[in-house]
Amino acid sequence: MFFEGAEKKLEIRLTPKMASLRQREYGFWSTLVACANAEILSTISNHACDAYLLSESSLFVWDDKILLLTCGNSTLVDAACHFINALGVEHIAALCYQRKNEYQAQLQSTSFADDIAKLRTLISGQAFRVGHLDSHHHYLFCSDNQFCTGDLFCTGNQVMPSTETCLELMMYHIRGELADYLKLPTQTEQGIYQRLGFQQLFPDFQFDMHCFQPAGFSLNAIRGTDYVTLHITPSMGRGEHSYVSFETNLDLATYPHPVVARLVDLFSPTSWDLIGFNQPIVTEGFPAHLCLGQAMVTTASGGEITFSHYQLLETQVLQPEFM
Amino acid sequence: MFFEGAEKKLEIRLTPKMASLRQREYGFWSTLVACANAEILSTISNHACDAYLLSESSLFVWDDKILLLTCGNSTLVDAACHFINALGVEHIAALCYQRKNEYQAQLQSTSFADDIAKLRTLISGQAFRVGHLDSHHHYLFCSDNQFCTGDLFCTGNQVMPSTETCLELMMYHIRGELADYLKLPTQTEQGIYQRLGFQQLFPDFQFDMHCFQPAGFSLNAIRGTDYVTLHITPSMGRGEHSYVSFETNLDLATYPHPVVARLVDLFSPTSWDLIGFNQPIVTEGFPAHLCLGQAMVTTASGGEITFSHYQLLETQVLQPEFM
Repeated sequence: MFFEGAEKKLEIRLTPKMASLRQREYGFWSTLVACANAEILSTISNHACDAYLLSESSLFVWDDKILLLTCGNSTLVDAACHFINALGVEHIAALCYQRKNEYQAQLQSTSFADDIAKLRTLISGQAFRVGHLDSHHHYLFCSDNQFCTGDLFCTGNQVMPSTETCLELMMYHIRGELADYLKLPTQTEQGIYQRLGFQQLFPDFQFDMHCFQPAGFSLNAIRGTDYVTLHITPSMGRGEHSYVSFETNLDLATYPHPVVARLVDLFSPTSWDLIGFNQPIVTEGFPAHLCLGQAMVTTASGGEITFSHYQLLETQVLQPEFM
Repeated sequence: MFFEGAEKKLEIRLTPKMASLRQREYGFWSTLVACANAEILSTISNHACDAYLLSESSLFVWDDKILLLTCGNSTLVDAACHFINALGVEHIAALCYQRKNEYQAQLQSTSFADDIAKLRTLISGQAFRVGHLDSHHHYLFCSDNQFCTGDLFCTGNQVMPSTETCLELMMYHIRGELADYLKLPTQTEQGIYQRLGFQQLFPDFQFDMHCFQPAGFSLNAIRGTDYVTLHITPSMGRGEHSYVSFETNLDLATYPHPVVARLVDLFSPTSWDLIGFNQPIVTEGFPAHLCLGQAMVTTASGGEITFSHYQLLETQVLQPEFM
């Protein structure tokens, strides 16, 4: 029994003067996520953002932007194509499609190369991979467009200066008390929530969360235009394929709590990656580690993407996994 | 343009009192390797062993044993099934099938799980993986049998004590002078051979070698029942997917030359794996490194398999690879 926790990520921003996306009916969003083989489980809203918790991760909708994250063997590229066709490509200011390091890429229904070939029939763009194929690596496609903000990797002309930030933390092979709790059949939503300490880390946020059967936990949180999303895929069945992802558009460099260090301490992964869009990577509070690889890409809009792959500075004793 | 350097490996030992495999005609071996989508390029022989250099790696034939290595998108499991059917499963004392960490597993025509499902229709056995899926990992299937020697992972009864040794060295992302030379259009067989210094490392061996177009180099060497085989897949086209494999049945613990340290120095990989069958892993002479993971498995026959994954103790600056 294997579940691919690693997400695919789609971010689309509309051109100015389009009607607010938040006026669209529920059916529009349920159809969109169905294209990716996901469904809506619950929703929270505030004056600036609607956050949908999905059977496979999360959807956030702002007036002029969506962020859709899907894990498992979801077909997020089909949702991207559906959205482009529904809105009209002329109304897409910027599109960014990302695939994170998968445990079992050969079990996915498409590769990133397949996905971008499909996307490029509708919208032009630049794609790249950072990280070696025999280690952690991430794929990114970003459209060539006239109107871009910094978290989208743009190569077109007339881009606007970057202002938005985003931080993605991917944790592999979690250990310790919380990891043990996440294997218990007695785990509860509130039990996980309490152990995460998110009320202290994100005191003004509105939360939505869901426990999956037989295991797995998802959480969305919003505060104005700010979002936080966390998805836990504990090890299920044979083998150790646990994965936890965290993402936020908070500027953690100025945020009063050491969010990333706290999460790495809490989940105690043996390796973890950070992808920062327009924010410096802070390693303070990390356990003794080796940064195996690091990349910095400056986008045409002046935005900066950093990618770092960390590994605990210790030798793991590996157990054979019988098949 | 991508070529998968990582090998699949098949080792089969016959039951005693079978006619020598070396009496079989050339057509038997060319048919066998054709099952794996490979062909024979050249052959060397001595009193104990025939060594075939293949379009995809190597075949060694002893009186009672074969070792077949194939890289690329070869179908080695089909050669295994062909051999079992040709000889009769009752004459197979032990079979071992291995797949090494691939750069792009999703481009392979089958997975290891597919392969062992096919093998198990003919012969029973135990299979396992060592190493995390998001990092270097290796798969091994070994038949349950009555007659086993130590380099074959056996779980049956009546196994014989282990005597044979084997060492596999896999090197990823090679750098330095030799790596640069291997990218030159002016490279030659003799140029590579001289730079390897194998005449000094293996002075009493008979050599066979081949340069591939546009790149790639294979070498077989034999001395009595001893063998050495080396396969180089330099980076071709975009990206850095270079791979070098080395394997021998020499007992390197008592061999007068520091073979592994010399190879790691020569190819200067950023990460490398060692799999030892009945021989201790010696890290003397390695550059500053972190051993990311280590596994030891004691076989039913008393043989010991060790697996170690090493990484240079430095942070690599990664360049985006555009797609």
